[in-house]
Amino acid sequence: MSYARQMLDTYPRTVDLNADLLAAAIDTLSDCAQACIADTDADLSEQNLAEMVRCVRLCLDCTDVCTATAGVISRLAEYDPATTKPLLEACAAVCKSCGDECERHAPHHEHCRVCAEACRRCEWACRDLLAALK
Amino acid sequence: MSYARQMLDTYPRTVDLNADLLAAAIDTLSDCAQACIADTDADLSEQNLAEMVRCVRLCLDCTDVCTATAGVISRLAEYDPATTKPLLEACAAVCKSCGDECERHAPHHEHCRVCAEACRRCEWACRDLLAALK
Amino acid sequence: MSYARQMLDTYPRTVDLNADLLAAAIDTLSDCAQACIADTDADLSEQNLAEMVRCVRLCLDCTDVCTATAGVISRLAEYDPATTKPLLEACAAVCKSCGDECERHAPHHEHCRVCAEACRRCEWACRDLLAALK
Amino acid sequence: MSYARQMLDTYPRTVDLNADLLAAAIDTLSDCAQACIADTDADLSEQNLAEMVRCVRLCLDCTDVCTATAGVISRLAEYDPATTKPLLEACAAVCKSCGDECERHAPHHEHCRVCAEACRRCEWACRDLLAALK
Repeated sequence: MSYARQMLDTYPRTVDLNADLLAAAIDTLSDCAQACIADTDADLSEQNLAEMVRCVRLCLDCTDVCTATAGVISRLAEYDPATTKPLLEACAAVCKSCGDECERHAPHHEHCRVCAEACRRCEWACRDLLAALK
Repeated sequence: MSYARQMLDTYPRTVDLNADLLAAAIDTLSDCAQACIADTDADLSEQNLAEMVRCVRLCLDCTDVCTATAGVISRLAEYDPATTKPLLEACAAVCKSCGDECERHAPHHEHCRVCAEACRRCEWACRDLLAALK
Repeated sequence: MSYARQMLDTYPRTVDLNADLLAAAIDTLSDCAQACIADTDADLSEQNLAEMVRCVRLCLDCTDVCTATAGVISRLAEYDPATTKPLLEACAAVCKSCGDECERHAPHHEHCRVCAEACRRCEWACRDLLAALK
Repeated sequence: MSYARQMLDTYPRTVDLNADLLAAAIDTLSDCAQACIADTDADLSEQNLAEMVRCVRLCLDCTDVCTATAGVISRLAEYDPATTKPLLEACAAVCKSCGDECERHAPHHEHCRVCAEACRRCEWACRDLLAALK
């Protein structure tokens, strides 16, 4: 069981959101941030560096937004839809852009294939959580 | 002249956005993140701690979202409206919520008055940048 | 297999460090940051709030240092011992302090027991990596 | 007056450290993180990209460590030398490495000259604070 899930299960207040969905979102955001940090560095080690620049930039954006989103949705008690909804939308959007770009490089760079998968899962987790919030 | 402005003025590419507006937004986001980190700690030092909990949580959210937004808008070359617009909306929303809550405590706690001001400026800077992006 | 491990296994350069040790450290740092973010929020929901303030502050420090350390050790190619060694020492120290404080609250608050475990593992992972770097 | 200084001046507890020194360190860390985020993106826009890769990586490390250090030294009340001293040492080290690398590129890239200056100031601010802590 992930720490996100264990922390949710021991939370001192009742949480309105589905705990499975929320724990999955926190884990997936954390995985995606981690994969994007590593992919940035792997991209910078490639021979076709000029073609990897867009991927580097999107991985940096994706890291920043996933990290912030994981933080905000982990603070359950003061949940504010005016912040959380556009933040999840921004996160789904950056995961989609970054996942698309990583997928373009996946045939040549295995690390981009792994990162694309992390981005896709994160995009879906954000969209699932958005749907549950409506 | 702030570092954000100096870095913009020496950027190797042409940037479509107004440099004054963008540099002001980066500086204001960075100031707001800094004020919220400090206000979190100041709130935790107050006697009326139970009444400060909402302020602490909103300051934590505000720090996370301002930090991510500053990062994303500092990466000018791959500017993606699908990410940037909802992110600026989320940031304006959390700055509004955090600024409102800080303002409630401002009569009793001077640090909340300072933090409320940083949040207000940041909310406006996000809205100004959003308007310029449309 | 974690994303940290998959990203290491597809890295385009040879990495001098033991991949098992490094992937474990990245995963453990990421888990600990996540647990500390959640424990901060759980602490703020407790009745004995005044007694939880030290735990909140240490969780905030631990989140910041674990996040930075995970980032730095994920960028393998420009590994600089002058930065990495004191950073791992700082991270082991904050994980020890935060783990000790969480353990004090563990008999009363289950979320602090979970967070203490994440901090202990992270302290050991930092020390293992430090030993391997020497 | 910076927000860091205003927040220090309205802090509800007595702080043992010199407020001028501490506020200067927080501002300088925040400036350096901001300059390094911008320099990463500027480097990625240069023609001589292969020669800029080391600079990009060091800017990413410098951003992470400066951000964490600014957070930790902003939480004044639970100041723990076992964490703060090695963290300031790590921060001074990464600012030195990053400043040296930026300086190498300064004759060709004005943005690296600006970033080198931000790194130098931050290295000194970390060393000044370390000296005051002893």
